[in-house]
Amino acid sequence: MAILPKLQDPCELRGLSDQQLDDLAAEIRECIISTVARTGGHLGSSLGVVELTIALHRVLESPRDKIVWDTGHQAYAHKLLTGRYARFGTLRQLGGIGGFPRRSESEHDVFDGGHAGTGLSMAQGLATARDLRHSMERIAVVVGDAALITGLSLEALNDIGHRQTQMLIILNDNAMSISPTVGAFSQYFSTLKLSTAWKQSKTAYDKVVEALPIVGHPALSLSRRIRRMVVNFAQPGQLFEDLGITYLGVIPGHNRRGLEHIFRAALDIPGPVIVHVRTRKGRGYRPAERDQIGFHGAALPPMPGLPGAMPLPEPRGTASHSAGRSTAFVRKESAIPAPGHQDEAPLEPALLVEPAGPDNGTGNGAGGSADMGTPSDAARAAASSKPANYTHHFAMELIELARHDRRIVAVTAGMPTGTGLHLFAEQFPDRLIDVGIAEQHAVALSAGMALGGERPVVALYSTFLQRAFDQEVHDVCQNDLPVLIAVDRAGLVGEDGTSHQGMFTLSSQRQLPNMVIASPKDEQELRSLVRTAFAQEHPFALHYPRDPGFGVPVREPVEIPVGVGEVLREGRQVLIVGFGPIVDRGRQAADALEAEGWSVGLLNARFAKPLDRQLILDQARGKRLVVTLEESVVTGGFGSGVLDLLEEARMVDPAYREVTVKIVGIPADHFVDHGSVDGLRRQLRLDGPGIAEQIRETLAKLRIERPSDAATSGPAVASAVSAALPRRKSVS
Amino acid sequence: MAILPKLQDPCELRGLSDQQLDDLAAEIRECIISTVARTGGHLGSSLGVVELTIALHRVLESPRDKIVWDTGHQAYAHKLLTGRYARFGTLRQLGGIGGFPRRSESEHDVFDGGHAGTGLSMAQGLATARDLRHSMERIAVVVGDAALITGLSLEALNDIGHRQTQMLIILNDNAMSISPTVGAFSQYFSTLKLSTAWKQSKTAYDKVVEALPIVGHPALSLSRRIRRMVVNFAQPGQLFEDLGITYLGVIPGHNRRGLEHIFRAALDIPGPVIVHVRTRKGRGYRPAERDQIGFHGAALPPMPGLPGAMPLPEPRGTASHSAGRSTAFVRKESAIPAPGHQDEAPLEPALLVEPAGPDNGTGNGAGGSADMGTPSDAARAAASSKPANYTHHFAMELIELARHDRRIVAVTAGMPTGTGLHLFAEQFPDRLIDVGIAEQHAVALSAGMALGGERPVVALYSTFLQRAFDQEVHDVCQNDLPVLIAVDRAGLVGEDGTSHQGMFTLSSQRQLPNMVIASPKDEQELRSLVRTAFAQEHPFALHYPRDPGFGVPVREPVEIPVGVGEVLREGRQVLIVGFGPIVDRGRQAADALEAEGWSVGLLNARFAKPLDRQLILDQARGKRLVVTLEESVVTGGFGSGVLDLLEEARMVDPAYREVTVKIVGIPADHFVDHGSVDGLRRQLRLDGPGIAEQIRETLAKLRIERPSDAATSGPAVASAVSAALPRRKSVS
Repeated sequence: MAILPKLQDPCELRGLSDQQLDDLAAEIRECIISTVARTGGHLGSSLGVVELTIALHRVLESPRDKIVWDTGHQAYAHKLLTGRYARFGTLRQLGGIGGFPRRSESEHDVFDGGHAGTGLSMAQGLATARDLRHSMERIAVVVGDAALITGLSLEALNDIGHRQTQMLIILNDNAMSISPTVGAFSQYFSTLKLSTAWKQSKTAYDKVVEALPIVGHPALSLSRRIRRMVVNFAQPGQLFEDLGITYLGVIPGHNRRGLEHIFRAALDIPGPVIVHVRTRKGRGYRPAERDQIGFHGAALPPMPGLPGAMPLPEPRGTASHSAGRSTAFVRKESAIPAPGHQDEAPLEPALLVEPAGPDNGTGNGAGGSADMGTPSDAARAAASSKPANYTHHFAMELIELARHDRRIVAVTAGMPTGTGLHLFAEQFPDRLIDVGIAEQHAVALSAGMALGGERPVVALYSTFLQRAFDQEVHDVCQNDLPVLIAVDRAGLVGEDGTSHQGMFTLSSQRQLPNMVIASPKDEQELRSLVRTAFAQEHPFALHYPRDPGFGVPVREPVEIPVGVGEVLREGRQVLIVGFGPIVDRGRQAADALEAEGWSVGLLNARFAKPLDRQLILDQARGKRLVVTLEESVVTGGFGSGVLDLLEEARMVDPAYREVTVKIVGIPADHFVDHGSVDGLRRQLRLDGPGIAEQIRETLAKLRIERPSDAATSGPAVASAVSAALPRRKSVS
Repeated sequence: MAILPKLQDPCELRGLSDQQLDDLAAEIRECIISTVARTGGHLGSSLGVVELTIALHRVLESPRDKIVWDTGHQAYAHKLLTGRYARFGTLRQLGGIGGFPRRSESEHDVFDGGHAGTGLSMAQGLATARDLRHSMERIAVVVGDAALITGLSLEALNDIGHRQTQMLIILNDNAMSISPTVGAFSQYFSTLKLSTAWKQSKTAYDKVVEALPIVGHPALSLSRRIRRMVVNFAQPGQLFEDLGITYLGVIPGHNRRGLEHIFRAALDIPGPVIVHVRTRKGRGYRPAERDQIGFHGAALPPMPGLPGAMPLPEPRGTASHSAGRSTAFVRKESAIPAPGHQDEAPLEPALLVEPAGPDNGTGNGAGGSADMGTPSDAARAAASSKPANYTHHFAMELIELARHDRRIVAVTAGMPTGTGLHLFAEQFPDRLIDVGIAEQHAVALSAGMALGGERPVVALYSTFLQRAFDQEVHDVCQNDLPVLIAVDRAGLVGEDGTSHQGMFTLSSQRQLPNMVIASPKDEQELRSLVRTAFAQEHPFALHYPRDPGFGVPVREPVEIPVGVGEVLREGRQVLIVGFGPIVDRGRQAADALEAEGWSVGLLNARFAKPLDRQLILDQARGKRLVVTLEESVVTGGFGSGVLDLLEEARMVDPAYREVTVKIVGIPADHFVDHGSVDGLRRQLRLDGPGIAEQIRETLAKLRIERPSDAATSGPAVASAVSAALPRRKSVS
């Protein structure tokens, strides 16, 4: 590390020699690899753009010129080149450097991103603002090939071409999803196109073209073959040219000097230009100095796991949460080929085996890691000691049900591994549809399949489902279709940070007519709720977290009547009502409070909509405080529904006026930064002790006295209430 | 009307002669025109597809085969052909036939739509379901050219081409937004392509192609010119072919026999096929039998208004609401050319002049109708007697501010007229960006412009903003950017019905950090809130309804401190707190209740976020009942915020336990059907009398007695509270 630690500003890159720049690239790779081995993160994408990033920062003058990183997970090199080397070791840690560009970190970070496909619009916005001000800065955006097929990116391309916005679009293509390589010829073409000689002789060519026999032979020229031939021969970017965007490509992505040359030339072309760069995801992952075989040029995907020597223990001893993350390192490999999710799940340091495989029942299998390379024995051992995560149980139950119900079809949007549906596809290869990063289409397509008599399940991360809100309202709910929306990564997701926390889906869904919203208290109940979803005929949103399961004993899944919760513990003063696995942290809080002499009841709501109104009212009666728990923003969510219910009850029964409702969840009006899930829960006081503390504070505020007879405590688990009338249409 | 009234089922179309079918087309046009003249509706789109609809129903066997109408506003002919002639006079009326396909109306209606761009996904879903069942029905989808550029449609095309889903896509192109006409040649091409002769000779052609000199002259063939030439020469649908979708076009859209021929042939081609049909929007609008000049072949856009003789008085005497609707009959004509909003505002019968023009101040201008044709004097008179609508006042204030602030840029998504921004464009042609039906891009682009230092305002209808929920969360709010999101058509919109009611945006926004949410009590306050939005630096959602203004006297707009409400009336027992123009209906209710002896206070909240916490708490103190009013779903909205606030207050001040909160709004868990806005408000008890009734019921439920001294009533208007500290970050 001779160069990187000394770099203070990207402008210094312009003073380095070729050799120094090559050394710098190696240093960047080394730094990224060693850091991600410790902190986890998006390794492949960032390694793939090291030369591209150096070239961009040499050609452009950031921060005056703007470099927009679509999605943002590939910006590690950018971070290292813009003054964040010293702090880079804190990557994705609470209070440390974020995994995506963040304006609060550096003036070189243009916007806070995280979701795929917004970069083109943001860059066009910057360019439009520039043009309105008659200013001169240059705007570049780096977008991945998978992000390019999001509807939003396509809308932006349509507008950029139409409006001829001056901007440089760099298509970072590491998956061949756009077009097959045309290799040297295409590069030759780009060079030719840019050369002065070509420009000068263009007129001459045109004259020849007019004399071509094509015009004279209309029938001949109509052949589809000739058209394809000419188009492919000319270049693969016809689609962009049709949209009015000059296309240059395909450019090798690891030749820094070549990239600089192309970028400089492209910036001189009037109007929008797209430079199609072919990169290797994970380039330099096993640096040659460590790996005697020599890594360069080797086929990368599927990538091997981290070498056994590299994983270090995760700080703070909170590694347990990461067991919940499927390590979709090579997300693009799904059962059904589709453009992969550019925003792939980041690499987790301590878990290279995912708890997968068709080991239905035990929930502890370590199979299904075929695409994960060769993890170290240590990592394998670490992984196998953890309970399977919710995602895994969801997939296993789905497989079980799909064996007997041919109508079950699974849909995802570039996340087959992250949602566990790759396991489903192993069993039912024809029944998983991966539409790429196109959440809107995934949900609307599912609605269409439900119309056609199938029982679709569309599995998306909570944060990405935001992209499909209108499809939930307009297509699924308006048509009251039995689509199971599996809301994976509901709640805090941890290191991915602000853009990825699953905290806005619950409140946006709770207002939707016809929709049932459920979440299980543990991984075994998840299986029952999957069963429940298919046993009813309405839109069904099933929320579950990124977490590992609790490792509770296997229970036979049973259909749970919609809208029926369960009493886990009786109590006299305080009632805790939880939605989802946070119920267990409610139990911890109840234990703590009971030890202090309070009498605390605990209720597992299971359904945020419809609420088990009667059960909640029965249990709330006579209590002084009802505490609602949810791992979602407190505004308009589960707790809000409980409060609405109590307020209604207060109108006819004054006894409920003595019951106060305290809504515990993610505080309103703040985004949640990155950090380990456990660390964030501690910070937000959503872990067991934090919840207990919030309850104590509320009791103090209410001046409620601890009862003298603290002897009545001790958990008394009650059986579930049997009242099971469907209450779907009630106000909840 | 000899044929249409007798048709019971579309299968009967296959028994009619050519002459009968031609007569039927004329009858359908006559029926649509005379009905829409009375009820309002989407005239142009439906008239454009009469022959197309007949052809489809002759070629396909609905309901076994499925015809999906994207958006759905062009399905009037379909409705008439599927047994709804007798009831067609009730179009868009409360309890009558809806303006979009509705599954509850007919087994021939495949899904309940209304938003543009979902049709392709729904159709692919149906086709996928069919294929999974190994069933044989045929699936067709009719999609407009403007709807085709929605991100969702593009995502679907990408997937349809990839998966080679067997389906017929009919591109209903009435605006030339996709490609310039290539006319007869292209038709010739399609014919050739389909003919057996061509298929047989294809191999022969290919041999010749291989001998073409192109391969031998690489430099020559690289010219952009030659590529363009060949592509354009061959056909305009290269883009579709690149995506793997067979393209046939452009087909004249009013030759029924030709359409049938093409549809039959297309259905026999394996894989997805797109038939590009050129239609004339409004075809047959002035039927030849009434118009001696002869209408056929005349250039339609811009279309003239309805002939003066045709508009009939709107039923139920509720015509006043329709003054609020800009009659964007020729939406595609915007200041900046862009694909128009296929889901254009429907024609209103009694209002052909929009209250527009740069008559800043009076609010009663009737200018700006240049693109509206020649309205009748009667209609003009009717319109000019109504106060200008909120949309108009919004545009006028924006223009006023933009004169002094060059950073103000306006963005819309295919709705320049509907949002009043065409007026803005008249003044600042370079500062309106219409991105077509691409709400996601509109919002993200605005975020980008805000990043670039501009002050963008993006104006969308509430219901269409649902499409951009993730952009609100991820791009605007996460980056805390000063984007003014003008939420037009917030609340009930009336005849457009279920898919168009603006009832889910408020609750989805209220959970978003950094966002301010405001709504004015009247059209003059709207101007002040526009001013407020630009005087602060955060995301600002400004909700206003489709309604006409109240015609209140002109007031000089003043900046209102964010989070500051106002007391309109003091009272002792009941406090009504309203958000938006529903405050006036709260006043009506207060008047009625005071006449009965109740003492009722009234508060104009102005902000749903942040709430004026202190003002609401001060005013609620000592009351028995707080009634919140909003024209949005009651779940998680404005009232929910007030209840949260009160519950918090109850923790520290038991006096608030005596105050009950009643949330009045659109009831939870039900979509709202079509009907006049006034009719719907009556039905939902959101008009003055209905609100009074709901309050009376609540008082009775609470057993609150009317005070003996009813003398203290009478409106006592208090001045606005001066406390103006910013309270943005508070929990609200």
